[in-house]
Amino acid sequence: MAKYSPEVDDVFLALADPTRRGVVRQLGRGPASVGDLAGAFPMTLPSFLKHVRALESAGLIHTTKAGRVRTCVLNRERLAVVQDWLAEQHSIWQQRTDRLEQFVTDEEHPS
Amino acid sequence: MAKYSPEVDDVFLALADPTRRGVVRQLGRGPASVGDLAGAFPMTLPSFLKHVRALESAGLIHTTKAGRVRTCVLNRERLAVVQDWLAEQHSIWQQRTDRLEQFVTDEEHPS
Repeated sequence: MAKYSPEVDDVFLALADPTRRGVVRQLGRGPASVGDLAGAFPMTLPSFLKHVRALESAGLIHTTKAGRVRTCVLNRERLAVVQDWLAEQHSIWQQRTDRLEQFVTDEEHPS
Repeated sequence: MAKYSPEVDDVFLALADPTRRGVVRQLGRGPASVGDLAGAFPMTLPSFLKHVRALESAGLIHTTKAGRVRTCVLNRERLAVVQDWLAEQHSIWQQRTDRLEQFVTDEEHPS
């Protein structure tokens, strides 16, 4: 059984929402202010800020404040959590395929 | 902005739990009965069944019943939802890198 990884929970949970995925997508084009980002999503600013905090808490974005402007920056490395998990699954599937192939070969050419 | 994709929400949400990721991982090795799967997780059978239903509802597994045994099978194709989303982000990052490189080239060799 895989080790328990609360950070994997956090990242998957953060990405289980269309607004938060939209913010990740937008920030992939470059840093943006909360104000500019918020304009693209049909909700109040307080609601939008909850999503920003959820992304920051999951480590998917960083934010910095200069004067009255809070700027959001994507933390691309954090998406490696998802990438690595997927790669692990593919590796398990490959091992299974290898075992099945070995089984068929052994059946066809018994020693 | 990306189109709204409730199925993407469902898949990410289903994977935001260590038990459910553990079941996906285990089923990557081949189909298994609910009883055999449940033994690997420290919880009551009703609690475990809720996770099985969440995975089935998200389309990540199928279950079939023969007599008193319910067998779970991984639906590998469904993980493509996550793979495709990640690939989209990488594509956006690449476009940004290309734009930045073009900018630097234009600055170094103005026409």
